[in-house]
Amino acid sequence: MVATRRISIRTRGHCDIIDITRQVAAEVESSGIKDGVVTLFVPGSTAAISTIENESGLLQDFKAMWDRNVPTDIPYAHDRAWGEGNGYSHVRASLLGASLTIPVVNRRMTLGTWQQIVLVDFDNRPRSREIILQLVGE
Amino acid sequence: MVATRRISIRTRGHCDIIDITRQVAAEVESSGIKDGVVTLFVPGSTAAISTIENESGLLQDFKAMWDRNVPTDIPYAHDRAWGEGNGYSHVRASLLGASLTIPVVNRRMTLGTWQQIVLVDFDNRPRSREIILQLVGE
Amino acid sequence: MVATRRISIRTRGHCDIIDITRQVAAEVESSGIKDGVVTLFVPGSTAAISTIENESGLLQDFKAMWDRNVPTDIPYAHDRAWGEGNGYSHVRASLLGASLTIPVVNRRMTLGTWQQIVLVDFDNRPRSREIILQLVGE
Repeated sequence: MVATRRISIRTRGHCDIIDITRQVAAEVESSGIKDGVVTLFVPGSTAAISTIENESGLLQDFKAMWDRNVPTDIPYAHDRAWGEGNGYSHVRASLLGASLTIPVVNRRMTLGTWQQIVLVDFDNRPRSREIILQLVGE
Repeated sequence: MVATRRISIRTRGHCDIIDITRQVAAEVESSGIKDGVVTLFVPGSTAAISTIENESGLLQDFKAMWDRNVPTDIPYAHDRAWGEGNGYSHVRASLLGASLTIPVVNRRMTLGTWQQIVLVDFDNRPRSREIILQLVGE
Repeated sequence: MVATRRISIRTRGHCDIIDITRQVAAEVESSGIKDGVVTLFVPGSTAAISTIENESGLLQDFKAMWDRNVPTDIPYAHDRAWGEGNGYSHVRASLLGASLTIPVVNRRMTLGTWQQIVLVDFDNRPRSREIILQLVGE
């Protein structure tokens, strides 16, 4: 059995980290699939999906890690070609990844207590994002 | 068809890298699923799953990469708030990822010869971890 | 329903980034699976799979990010032991990840307009790679 669901999110960009756990859990529960996996996928090349404990200090630490390792203030060849100034956003998104697959057991994801699912929008402006949830199971 | 298996692991923390390939392969082989995928997922926000060649020099190199890019000895906002001193562990785990999906063909995973599945425990203390294996296929 | 497909790629190594979107899309379309997921997996421990906009400036930026964060010109314990000089390739591949799962809806992957699937070969020499495509769905 396969069920497709979509979640729409407005972001502020600039490494906006948005907790989507509750919305995903609600879609999983109502999908009709009891056991299987849910794949979350964000179309686009400047956003990514991961898990993190949704604690405000940690979200700051996560952003600071990106600023250290994939800085906004160094030259990017993409920006010379396209002038949108978001070369760093693309590089960050490719590294973190657009996809996440989570087991579903008895209509619930097997997340840890403090483990939340987040959409990370690395783009340099607010965006509307649609996340695809693909459930496969029985 | 769906099969759920669980693997329990005791770790030493501190970027402990534990090869779980044999245990996963045994569960896959006995699952009753011939062809499909196995999703490995670690609940919790300070551990991750990846693949690496299990060679002792390489495991040192992998740890050194984390120490350079997500250092233990810089201030983390999470630590100011919670005082557990493991802010870096959370950031590392979010970047590496809690999930891994591998094809299963004829009851075997399609791993390369030197490609092992590892649990990486980034936390700053020993932990008991449970890894969920979700097999979906036929 | 499960369908297994394989794609063979010759790479130049040295962070060669190869767009495989069209080949994957063709295999997905002809697989007989209308809705589900496709898992792409590269056997081996010095290559990885991700998504990126296939724009030449951006591919340069992505390579530069790897050179900054997982440099080729620092000592690696793996190289002292094995002398192949590709310790950095292993570390990069483990961080980026060997696996990617994408939803398939109505015989098509739900990729963004500018979001391409790439094989990244981090090894320090040309390689022949085989990517496994595992489709699970209905």
